[in-house]
Amino acid sequence: MNTTFQHIGIIHSCFTEKFGIPRQSGLVSEAPAEVEIFPPYNREEAFRKLETFSHIWILFVFHAIKIKDWKPCVRPPRLGGNQKVGVFATRSGFRPNRIGMSSVRLMNIRQEGSCIILSVKGGDFLNQTPVLDIKPYLPYADMIPSAAGGFAAAAPESELAVEFSPQALETCTEIEKQSCPGLSKLIVQTLSIDPRPAYHSHRPVPKVFGVKLYNFNIKWEISDDGILVTSIENC
Amino acid sequence: MNTTFQHIGIIHSCFTEKFGIPRQSGLVSEAPAEVEIFPPYNREEAFRKLETFSHIWILFVFHAIKIKDWKPCVRPPRLGGNQKVGVFATRSGFRPNRIGMSSVRLMNIRQEGSCIILSVKGGDFLNQTPVLDIKPYLPYADMIPSAAGGFAAAAPESELAVEFSPQALETCTEIEKQSCPGLSKLIVQTLSIDPRPAYHSHRPVPKVFGVKLYNFNIKWEISDDGILVTSIENC
Repeated sequence: MNTTFQHIGIIHSCFTEKFGIPRQSGLVSEAPAEVEIFPPYNREEAFRKLETFSHIWILFVFHAIKIKDWKPCVRPPRLGGNQKVGVFATRSGFRPNRIGMSSVRLMNIRQEGSCIILSVKGGDFLNQTPVLDIKPYLPYADMIPSAAGGFAAAAPESELAVEFSPQALETCTEIEKQSCPGLSKLIVQTLSIDPRPAYHSHRPVPKVFGVKLYNFNIKWEISDDGILVTSIENC
Repeated sequence: MNTTFQHIGIIHSCFTEKFGIPRQSGLVSEAPAEVEIFPPYNREEAFRKLETFSHIWILFVFHAIKIKDWKPCVRPPRLGGNQKVGVFATRSGFRPNRIGMSSVRLMNIRQEGSCIILSVKGGDFLNQTPVLDIKPYLPYADMIPSAAGGFAAAAPESELAVEFSPQALETCTEIEKQSCPGLSKLIVQTLSIDPRPAYHSHRPVPKVFGVKLYNFNIKWEISDDGILVTSIENC
């Protein structure tokens, strides 16, 4: 038995490649995204009163996973990438039905021509993610203060210091003025939670990485002092 | 564009008809349900470490809605059934993609022959609900203490007193001994939150209602003093 669901919209996200996407919603609180609702779901009245909620759930498709088969176990980055747990004990996208769910802050809802666009912050979406549903976050039902979070009880601990080289800072300031306010804050939040795969975490040698945000390639190095953003280039 | 998802399991729930189902998960904390996982998803290792979480999300299909079309607005019971709001501002099943999500307490996971069965409490599922996904409830990501719940900010207020007639109490005690421990508590919780449709709420005349739990028809009357369970019959 199966059920087919329509894509009701698409997410335009600052995360334009998988590397760098926070591993849960809320971890990069300033990460902006826009949810564009497709016809025939783009009706103002279908979202009436949604603006009274501060947060919403977005149900989406993990669309960029190319492997067709699912495996019963995954190695969550959370456990250092070495330990296998059941896929249903994780929020990994490598699951039988590739439905993701993330709670985000609802900033505003606007109409642009025939489009309905929801502006949100704090998401963990890859750009172009297909949307299945929008639901209000109901504190009285969705907040469970007594819940115990198993092997993922608390947010990941790493909070690295992030600095910019003088040249990277200059480029960033220029880009912020021209087209992309908040870019430096987004870079800091994204890198401070250490986007490197788990198996790199204890490599002592500084190494150069690149992470894509919007259409910028952010290059950075890691050392014992933290992260240094060395350049920001169009890509 | 659309995506097809397999049903990975089915829910065996105490709620065998729509009337009486709590309007969110957690409202009837003792409501039991069992999630039977279908092959090929019924592999013990696919659920490994899930037992370390106290609560899980169940994504499911609202399967009993027969109307094919969706409407942009619904009248939530929450607002007395008279006010229309956008369907995306509610958790109603009458939505374009009929995916529901509920958080429940995970009581245990057991293997019975080739079956994997998750035993849960606090659900709001109709019996025979198809399951799309099981995910752990992650307190650090899913608890949003700052969230504002719009027009559904707090749990519904009504808490009616529930009494049993001597005959109903006797029948209930007998059923509890024989086959169904906890039935009286389940009846009290289910009725105390007033399962009547919103448009009945201010009718002063006592009226007889019936609600089905498992294969029992629970008859009850309402008056200014609260609810009186008058009989419990097999159906």
